[in-house]
Amino acid sequence: MIAETPKPPYYAVIFTSLRREGDDDGYAETAGRMLELATLQPGFLGFESARAGIGLSVSYWRSLEAIAAWKNNAEHRQAQHNAQQWYEAYRIRICRVEKEYGF
Amino acid sequence: MIAETPKPPYYAVIFTSLRREGDDDGYAETAGRMLELATLQPGFLGFESARAGIGLSVSYWRSLEAIAAWKNNAEHRQAQHNAQQWYEAYRIRICRVEKEYGF
Repeated sequence: MIAETPKPPYYAVIFTSLRREGDDDGYAETAGRMLELATLQPGFLGFESARAGIGLSVSYWRSLEAIAAWKNNAEHRQAQHNAQQWYEAYRIRICRVEKEYGF
Repeated sequence: MIAETPKPPYYAVIFTSLRREGDDDGYAETAGRMLELATLQPGFLGFESARAGIGLSVSYWRSLEAIAAWKNNAEHRQAQHNAQQWYEAYRIRICRVEKEYGF
C-alpha cells in the first residue's frame, strides 16, 4: 500500500538493508512486531516496504521527536541490538519531506 | 546495492508506485533507460530500488536544483507523460536527508 500522508512538511526514515543468508532466526516475527509497535507510536504517519535483493522500508513521522521516541522504545532497542544477526549491512536515513505529489 | 552517499545534508526522492496489471508495454526498457540517464545527471548521488507488491525507488541528489533539472530532462518528461499507462498510482516525496547512520 502507498502510505496516505499529510501535507508536508513531515519526516521519513528510509531504512535500506541487506539480509544475511541463512535461517530466519526470529526475523519475520520481530519485523512484524516492530511494525505493529511503530504504528502505535505517537506521531506515526505511515509505512511502505518492499524487498528484492535489498530491502527498502520507509516510515513516515510527524516530527523528529516522534522518530527519537520510537528509536528509544525499549522493545525496539532490543531489536536494534539484534540487528547484526539479521543484516549484512544497513543504512538509516532521516529526512524531512518537503514536497509530495503523484496520482 | 545500498547506495554510498556523502555526509548529509543531501536530498532524496522517494518514488512509491503501484504497477498496473497487464503487459509490460515498454516499462522495463523505459525504467532501465531512466536509471541510466539519471546516473549521468549532475548532482546524482545514488539509487536504491525494490519491488514486492508496491515498488519503492529512492534516488539521492546533491541539491533541489539537481532534482529539478532531472525532472525537466526531455527524455524523462516523455517517460513521465506515459506514467499513467504503467502505474495504477504513485507518490513522489522530495526530502532533505538530515542524518545517516548504519553499518
